[in-house]
Amino acid sequence: MKDVALGIDIGGTNTKFGFVDKEGNMYGETSISTVKTPPGDVDAFLKYLYKEIEVLREQIQEDLNIVGVGIGAPNGNYFTGTIEYAPNLSFQGIVDLVKLFKRYYDVPMVLTNDANAAAIGEMIYGGARNMKNFIMVTLGTGLGSGFVANGELIYGNDGFAGEMGHILQDPEGRVCGLGRKGCLEAYVSATGIKRTTFRLLADMNAESPLRDISYNQLTAAMITEQALKGDPIACAAFEETSRLLGQKLSDMVAIFSPEAIFLLGGLAKAGDLLFKPTKAYMEQYMFQVFRDKVVILPSALEDRNAAVLGSSALAWKEIGIKVD
Amino acid sequence: MKDVALGIDIGGTNTKFGFVDKEGNMYGETSISTVKTPPGDVDAFLKYLYKEIEVLREQIQEDLNIVGVGIGAPNGNYFTGTIEYAPNLSFQGIVDLVKLFKRYYDVPMVLTNDANAAAIGEMIYGGARNMKNFIMVTLGTGLGSGFVANGELIYGNDGFAGEMGHILQDPEGRVCGLGRKGCLEAYVSATGIKRTTFRLLADMNAESPLRDISYNQLTAAMITEQALKGDPIACAAFEETSRLLGQKLSDMVAIFSPEAIFLLGGLAKAGDLLFKPTKAYMEQYMFQVFRDKVVILPSALEDRNAAVLGSSALAWKEIGIKVD
Repeated sequence: MKDVALGIDIGGTNTKFGFVDKEGNMYGETSISTVKTPPGDVDAFLKYLYKEIEVLREQIQEDLNIVGVGIGAPNGNYFTGTIEYAPNLSFQGIVDLVKLFKRYYDVPMVLTNDANAAAIGEMIYGGARNMKNFIMVTLGTGLGSGFVANGELIYGNDGFAGEMGHILQDPEGRVCGLGRKGCLEAYVSATGIKRTTFRLLADMNAESPLRDISYNQLTAAMITEQALKGDPIACAAFEETSRLLGQKLSDMVAIFSPEAIFLLGGLAKAGDLLFKPTKAYMEQYMFQVFRDKVVILPSALEDRNAAVLGSSALAWKEIGIKVD
Repeated sequence: MKDVALGIDIGGTNTKFGFVDKEGNMYGETSISTVKTPPGDVDAFLKYLYKEIEVLREQIQEDLNIVGVGIGAPNGNYFTGTIEYAPNLSFQGIVDLVKLFKRYYDVPMVLTNDANAAAIGEMIYGGARNMKNFIMVTLGTGLGSGFVANGELIYGNDGFAGEMGHILQDPEGRVCGLGRKGCLEAYVSATGIKRTTFRLLADMNAESPLRDISYNQLTAAMITEQALKGDPIACAAFEETSRLLGQKLSDMVAIFSPEAIFLLGGLAKAGDLLFKPTKAYMEQYMFQVFRDKVVILPSALEDRNAAVLGSSALAWKEIGIKVD
């Protein structure tokens, strides 16, 4: 019998899950379509999820003992175990997720948002294992973040802390979700660099294969591909994105003075294209006392399933705290 | 014999100190001129400080037992006990303050910057006694800040965290100390509102008694006085300062989700002139999920000597941790 934590990452399109032991070894991992269940019907979704989890458990040779469940989900609240008004999920209003899912697994169960789960994953299994102060930034469709200070993740008073994607880049700037203007994630994310690319296609005259691609077809991976070939529009888009990210990271350093900043997610896969100019701009904008002290690193979870690992780490951390 | 902590606040012009018991009662408090000692001569300064502390102790009826020393100073480092390159102190380079002062008082001794000391003071004696997550912002000559999350002050990896005054308001904006451009404190502080007033005197045509005052004569208190009388320039200066502060506080809320934000210091004395529009702007710029959750409060230490109280609280906290 092997003790494992069940890690679940609920996303707008897919929900991924897997079993992870205390050392971070994954025992099977799969995903189901989140949207396959009737929209808004949490009960149906959880029933389907449970069934698929048990199917996966059956397939694994070893006998698995689920000692805890960690769930990462947009707008997941650590304190209440609820998902609250998540704009990209079909569940409406406030959903009592932990309470509902405990009917299936009556073990310690914790919920937080996906970026916080990734930060915990980095702390337990990844590159932040010996760090007390670090920042995790996830650059996917949006910009998520998790802040660890004094060895503890910051959940804040209401459980929703760590929303770096919603600090203001420009109060009169791009419209983002929910009608708010100028959120950082409208500039720095896979979506953000796409928007920047389209503005640059309008502003610049340079020829570019990107001029043959529609907004809906364009992906951050395509921009990366072109930037690697030296395409001037794509290079300018990475330059601008890195400048804005570097500048805001210098602000975060002034507040947190972390040991490291980890980048994870689709846009982080661009590697040096993003990391090098971001680091250079961060140092350029940095308050002198913090200069050359903070490293920007790719998440050590990047090549594995960071979201599932992070969620399972959340469960292990919770059990650890309860056992100690 | 009464157990007290010695709280010391080292400033560029004056150094204040006093004895404080565990309940926050002050047993004598005074100040000496920091600049009276030979510039840069730490040994002479500490010798003079010690002498004056003992003079104060003699004057007090009760027999005081100094159980710890807390020191707040610009660029004070909690981890190393050093003051590092403080621009407004005469001490050069890195000064091993705690080590040097332990020659006089061989008791637990801690150092941090003044804003962090104020945050600890608020937590131990002030309005944040039951709070685990709050922000302290000091609005004096500069803008200082201390961040408390999960019940602990954030010192960061190098001991210098919490420099909200040095996040960027405008990377191409006002030159601040050390030649950096656009620090928030160049806009939001007693100095910042003075600079804004001078820009408004240039931009606007309205008559104002402020047009008869030179830059070097002008103080934040004069601007407050005029704003209370409805002077359009002074009112516009408070409006602009509050807008910038409110906006940056909304960013800080997105990161920390604190229960409260405390304002302390000269500019905070303007009361409603500053608090009301700052709160309104903070809510206006706020990411929806945090709206109407965070209060902005005057520091409960405002009418007492916050810096000395805060420094003594730092000592009590340290002793508490060591005793527990």
